[in-house]
Amino acid sequence: MEGNYLISTNFNDTAFVINVPKIKFGMNTTKEVGKDAVGLKIKNALVVVGPRLKDSKQFHDVLSSLSESGINYAVFDEVKTEPDDENLTKGYEAIKGKKIDGLISFGGGSTIDTAKILNLLYKYPRDINDYINKPIGKGMIPEGDLLPHIAIPTTAGTGSETTNVTIFDVERLHVKTGISNPFIRPSLAIIDPVNTLTMPPKVTASTGLDVLNHAIESYTSHPYTARPPVASPDERPVYSGSTPIGDLFGLQAIEWVHKYLRRAFADPLDLEARYYMTMGASIAGMGFGHVGVHIPHAMAYPIAGMIKKWHPDDYDFGYPISPHGISTAIPAAYVFRYLSKFVPERFADVLTALGYDTEGMSAEDIGDTLYGYYIDLLHALKIPDNLSDLDFTSSDIEKLVDGTMAQQRLIGLSPKKIDKSDIEFLFKEAMGR
Amino acid sequence: MEGNYLISTNFNDTAFVINVPKIKFGMNTTKEVGKDAVGLKIKNALVVVGPRLKDSKQFHDVLSSLSESGINYAVFDEVKTEPDDENLTKGYEAIKGKKIDGLISFGGGSTIDTAKILNLLYKYPRDINDYINKPIGKGMIPEGDLLPHIAIPTTAGTGSETTNVTIFDVERLHVKTGISNPFIRPSLAIIDPVNTLTMPPKVTASTGLDVLNHAIESYTSHPYTARPPVASPDERPVYSGSTPIGDLFGLQAIEWVHKYLRRAFADPLDLEARYYMTMGASIAGMGFGHVGVHIPHAMAYPIAGMIKKWHPDDYDFGYPISPHGISTAIPAAYVFRYLSKFVPERFADVLTALGYDTEGMSAEDIGDTLYGYYIDLLHALKIPDNLSDLDFTSSDIEKLVDGTMAQQRLIGLSPKKIDKSDIEFLFKEAMGR
Repeated sequence: MEGNYLISTNFNDTAFVINVPKIKFGMNTTKEVGKDAVGLKIKNALVVVGPRLKDSKQFHDVLSSLSESGINYAVFDEVKTEPDDENLTKGYEAIKGKKIDGLISFGGGSTIDTAKILNLLYKYPRDINDYINKPIGKGMIPEGDLLPHIAIPTTAGTGSETTNVTIFDVERLHVKTGISNPFIRPSLAIIDPVNTLTMPPKVTASTGLDVLNHAIESYTSHPYTARPPVASPDERPVYSGSTPIGDLFGLQAIEWVHKYLRRAFADPLDLEARYYMTMGASIAGMGFGHVGVHIPHAMAYPIAGMIKKWHPDDYDFGYPISPHGISTAIPAAYVFRYLSKFVPERFADVLTALGYDTEGMSAEDIGDTLYGYYIDLLHALKIPDNLSDLDFTSSDIEKLVDGTMAQQRLIGLSPKKIDKSDIEFLFKEAMGR
Repeated sequence: MEGNYLISTNFNDTAFVINVPKIKFGMNTTKEVGKDAVGLKIKNALVVVGPRLKDSKQFHDVLSSLSESGINYAVFDEVKTEPDDENLTKGYEAIKGKKIDGLISFGGGSTIDTAKILNLLYKYPRDINDYINKPIGKGMIPEGDLLPHIAIPTTAGTGSETTNVTIFDVERLHVKTGISNPFIRPSLAIIDPVNTLTMPPKVTASTGLDVLNHAIESYTSHPYTARPPVASPDERPVYSGSTPIGDLFGLQAIEWVHKYLRRAFADPLDLEARYYMTMGASIAGMGFGHVGVHIPHAMAYPIAGMIKKWHPDDYDFGYPISPHGISTAIPAAYVFRYLSKFVPERFADVLTALGYDTEGMSAEDIGDTLYGYYIDLLHALKIPDNLSDLDFTSSDIEKLVDGTMAQQRLIGLSPKKIDKSDIEFLFKEAMGR
């Protein structure tokens, strides 16, 4: 595996950048948030919380800790699970007059992403489209640092607490995209496994699948040395392609998800499983946060954006929703089977991390085995293994393909060059019947 | 291995903190330093460079890059290899009137550490003893952020570019100690394997051994959950004890040093070996930078501080010197053999990373095998395997023991409780005859 990274260093870009926040990991560290906020010189905090948690004991502890440290705060709880541009803009309108010098987010990826965007729009107000990634938006970079932001994840999935990325829907286009730039990551991530003990089973399943996808997609991305050179370091994309350090995080996260996701799903209070799922989510985040993800994530965005009436248990919000982890994991089964034919060595390493002996396996065996692993895991987690079960039909394929092809930033990270016909083939396969 | 970290979480501290700078890794990225400095809003830089490099082509490129980006600079080249408090204070006196808004350091650990201290004393002027770790100094914490500092290592060893630690001699006590606090780490580390191609063989050997020691010592430190609870997060020590993430970095660094150090020593231009040694040094730094190191480092400080007339090849500076990597690696052989008896599982993992099959090995076998590995490696790198060859005699032991026992911050991280008689025994062993 190691030699890969030395290829073509003369003609391509030769660098990758890792830029993670300060990370505090540990049981019950959430209760230190007040003192941490003082350390960041926060006096007037905007506390962003998801709807499931706003009345929880844990969130009450967050607020008490802030009060005890003498910090004023306002609570923002208008977080939409899988947020969209309109809801984020409305959120900004609600806070723009307030006196805020720091943010604290307490929730899953949607909550942390909402806080990242509120921070951006509050500090450097612009139309959200100015910041959205090209080609959908203008991809503008803010002028400098944002307000300090302490992110406290309550799921083990997103990795958003460590990344320079946010993901949301653009309503008028029915497509997910996002904002990536070097300024939006939080200043401090407090990663406390205890916060994940109350996650409902399907949330555990979906967010856990997201970790697995982050890890496998980043591990199998094209190498960082496969990009053309840049004229200036600030032109280097946030996502570099796979790196030796990303590999390290990815393979370890795969091992932990393999070992602990089913346990956390079966028993929400299995502290050891929660501990390693939380740690796995964070290291997968530190990995894909600089490496990137590719085809399953690109396909997931239109899947989530076009969902019609389906939602899984534990996501009963009164609107249809395909949670991010489910939207990535269903196509992943089909994509990995397909890509294994082209880069069998990398997918063999993935299988090894999943506990398989790959000696003597053909490229086809590797793909089939990983496909089988995914399908079994989806069944174990009681999640559909195909898109028809999410009410998609063959008449949706054209739009799903277009929505995927719009994610060129991710498609370009595939280990094999992917065009429209590949994506069409993969959606047909993922339809399942 | 994993279960260890869950023990006693109710009664001990439950948290660890990882706080690394932005890291840019890649071939020839040094030439981007000017643009990176602009990104950090540096206009008037102090460029700190070691004596071996100040006339090099590579350093000339650093200065050219700064000039091309319109950055004014002053060069500070009074870096002492293995610096001391007096020389650092003198360095501060030399720069204190200058207009400086950022630092760039280009060199090995001594150079980067010197820049860290100059930054600290320039921004918050105090007697250096106020900042030196307790009990030797007062262990004061600066009021806030220091100036931006871009560290560009030219060795693959120290990890100083990513850590919150500096190490130097205190002349009046003939002992090495240092300054650790959350503010002194650089803002950006540019890690460019090309800078290590001109390292002389003994510098390659010594710095590479330092990486191996960082990795093994951090991997075998007591678990982070073995510390008593803290009343406030700012009381948490920089060094937490071993963590699952530190473990990941440590074992990978051990594998890379095992595979590539002899190659880099034998052929300075072996680019693949230089690449992975550089990467190994950085990840070992990210590991021990939050985990810590223990007995070999504690013993190394008085060894280096009390050296009388010895110096290895490639370190001919006109004064006696035992480079840091050599000072740690010689005691390490004896310490690891001794500690393996008490925590054989952790040392068995180390042996596995070094390519051994440990099945059926007794605790004693594990210790003897690791000892044998170290002695063979020292021989291969043409470095003495005992302290007598560095001109120490049994009459030095008392002072060596006292100097070691002063490093309580490190001794407390040992996986087995260590007292004076243990250290005395270990120095007698390390004397070799």
